Amino acid sequence: MKCNVVAVGTELLLGQIVDTNSTWIGEHLAAAGIESHLQLKVGDNLGRVATAFRTALESADAIVVCGGLGPTHDDLTREAIAEVMGTELVQDDGLVAVIADLFARRNRPMAGNNLRQALVPIGATVIPQTRGTAPGLVCPVGDKVIYAVPGVPHEMHDMMERAVIPDLLARSGERAVIESRVLRTWGESESGLNERLEAVITELDTVGNPTLAFLASGWEGIKVRLTAKATDSVAAARLLDEWEGRVRSVIGDIIFGVDADTMETVVLGALAARGWTLGVAESVTGGLVAGRLTSVPGASQVFRGGVVAYASEVKFDVLGVERGPVVSERAALEMAKGARRVLGCDVALALTGVAGPDEQDGQAVGTLCVGVVLPDGRSEAARLMLPGVRDQVRQLSVISALDFLRRRLG
Amino acid sequence: MKCNVVAVGTELLLGQIVDTNSTWIGEHLAAAGIESHLQLKVGDNLGRVATAFRTALESADAIVVCGGLGPTHDDLTREAIAEVMGTELVQDDGLVAVIADLFARRNRPMAGNNLRQALVPIGATVIPQTRGTAPGLVCPVGDKVIYAVPGVPHEMHDMMERAVIPDLLARSGERAVIESRVLRTWGESESGLNERLEAVITELDTVGNPTLAFLASGWEGIKVRLTAKATDSVAAARLLDEWEGRVRSVIGDIIFGVDADTMETVVLGALAARGWTLGVAESVTGGLVAGRLTSVPGASQVFRGGVVAYASEVKFDVLGVERGPVVSERAALEMAKGARRVLGCDVALALTGVAGPDEQDGQAVGTLCVGVVLPDGRSEAARLMLPGVRDQVRQLSVISALDFLRRRLG
Repeated sequence: MKCNVVAVGTELLLGQIVDTNSTWIGEHLAAAGIESHLQLKVGDNLGRVATAFRTALESADAIVVCGGLGPTHDDLTREAIAEVMGTELVQDDGLVAVIADLFARRNRPMAGNNLRQALVPIGATVIPQTRGTAPGLVCPVGDKVIYAVPGVPHEMHDMMERAVIPDLLARSGERAVIESRVLRTWGESESGLNERLEAVITELDTVGNPTLAFLASGWEGIKVRLTAKATDSVAAARLLDEWEGRVRSVIGDIIFGVDADTMETVVLGALAARGWTLGVAESVTGGLVAGRLTSVPGASQVFRGGVVAYASEVKFDVLGVERGPVVSERAALEMAKGARRVLGCDVALALTGVAGPDEQDGQAVGTLCVGVVLPDGRSEAARLMLPGVRDQVRQLSVISALDFLRRRLG
Repeated sequence: MKCNVVAVGTELLLGQIVDTNSTWIGEHLAAAGIESHLQLKVGDNLGRVATAFRTALESADAIVVCGGLGPTHDDLTREAIAEVMGTELVQDDGLVAVIADLFARRNRPMAGNNLRQALVPIGATVIPQTRGTAPGLVCPVGDKVIYAVPGVPHEMHDMMERAVIPDLLARSGERAVIESRVLRTWGESESGLNERLEAVITELDTVGNPTLAFLASGWEGIKVRLTAKATDSVAAARLLDEWEGRVRSVIGDIIFGVDADTMETVVLGALAARGWTLGVAESVTGGLVAGRLTSVPGASQVFRGGVVAYASEVKFDVLGVERGPVVSERAALEMAKGARRVLGCDVALALTGVAGPDEQDGQAVGTLCVGVVLPDGRSEAARLMLPGVRDQVRQLSVISALDFLRRRLG
């Protein structure tokens, strides 16, 4: 089964927004075992959109078209699909009722052009919206098919997972379910992972199911994705459980989470499970650790606050660090102890280091000293060397420090 | 002049990396007045790459091909271009010398496959590298042309600006230089900007030079880009100066910077110019304001630090906020005063608000209270309502609060 992708919108060609939708669709098609050989971006011009659809369809069994389903005269995906199908658009009364109802519930008047979203090519079926107004479409073209989904990312994700990928699998004659599990790792390179998992990978290559892929996620570590094909979800889960166990038996030490887990949700969860509150003291990261922890809804149950001690005087005066070199394990520990006292938290995490561009106190760019104090008074500090320039050093410092804390909550 | 874009690499189709190169190329072609109607992504397969080149070239005068110029057997751009040109690859002795010299200077042995990068289709000319090993190519195909540039972003940017865009302009018979200036705005919608600037836009439509475009940049506001065409740089700068003045006379109040300026560099610069230091107190943004300020190299000259007062107790105990509702203008002012005292800074900025998912103290999601205290003791607070859900509210809070401070440093 081959499925190409077309993203519609002049703003994509002009570079005003980055086309992350095609990236998402490509990743999810690949995870479902569906090949994608060509992805196109085209502007809001009826003739060019229709040509792009024909081009993309030529070398595939199906295409996913993303965007151009809104209510304005620039939204031409419906018209272009009708042209490629050689048919007309008709108003779908069911959709009219749904859209009118949506505006009524929001107490907003409905401009007439919203009814454009109720137009459907003859012969197409509708993918109902659950999150917005623009419905999706499944449009047969001979023995091929065009799927149209909205360009709003969370609406597109929902329709892809709920309707498009299952329909593609059904059309491919695939009677199996395909399910993935992502193991999130931190602290090992891709080649290092590859080496450690070599025996598992060789065995998987022989059995062929599940498959294993590494997805590099930059500052977020490397994801190990297992994708299993089975007759039903229960059997797929059993396969994934078995091989997750095999992978964990080799690299369990660097797996910090599964699927939607992030380093910050894992750290907050581990603290919540122990009933402990957290505070941070940051120098090199200047607030990024606190900012990341508070990105999690409900963080306030665990996270009390932080001190961004950027100037050395703030380290000395607010946190009680003893005067002297401020990029050191001693300073990190004293910062953590100071944060625990000032913020009244059970656990404190502190970071001090050198992000660059220049070295500081004779310490090289990339130096990170991290300190942790736990409720029983136990404390620990470490010194790490991180690669890269300023922004990278700061981001790597955030996740490295959170992982350092996570390992001490085990 | 029409120029399409092809990005080459299986990892792009698999969604392992986002294709930001095409976005950058699209933006820079548009700024140079060159139309781009179609952009493609294709995997590392010789037949499909060649087909993609032919498809993209069909509806354009030129194409830019990005990626696939490396030394490995997966790098097939050279071969595919030779196929489309109907010619062969030959080794360019000049390139062999350049590549060998590069390895020699780095004291690294050169693997034989690096010589693949010295292969050039007969009839093509080379764009010399200044930053890496893979040279670019200018390849005539009848009266059309294929430009090949590396996929490494900074190498690609350099070749596009140095060689490809000037060559495209020369081919289009354009003897002019094209230069842009970006005015950064915050606090007005795109339609609002459009309305306020209507007279200027109408006049520009008549004179035709410079052109004016709005670039929405999400949480970073809207950019107003002026692009001037002139016989030389001096004349272009004169045109840009004149029309920047015209635009400023209408919307000068919301322009916070020019070109590479960001809200944080502008705020830090204004403080540095007055010799004032800054501290922040954050609740709703949880460290993001401090994180963003410290992303600027040299921020330590101005920025002393911050208190992330996420729990109410931290607001009361550390910052001395009077017990009571913590999402209020009063609380924001007391947080700012407390931060100034605790951090020993001249100026303090404080934020308290509701990011959601739930309302707090009867205050709706999107509420932001911001407070500023200046060295002369003047203080000011305001209440804003920001749209969106958690992450958006937090990011909009950061830039809104920095802009609030910026306006008080004027």
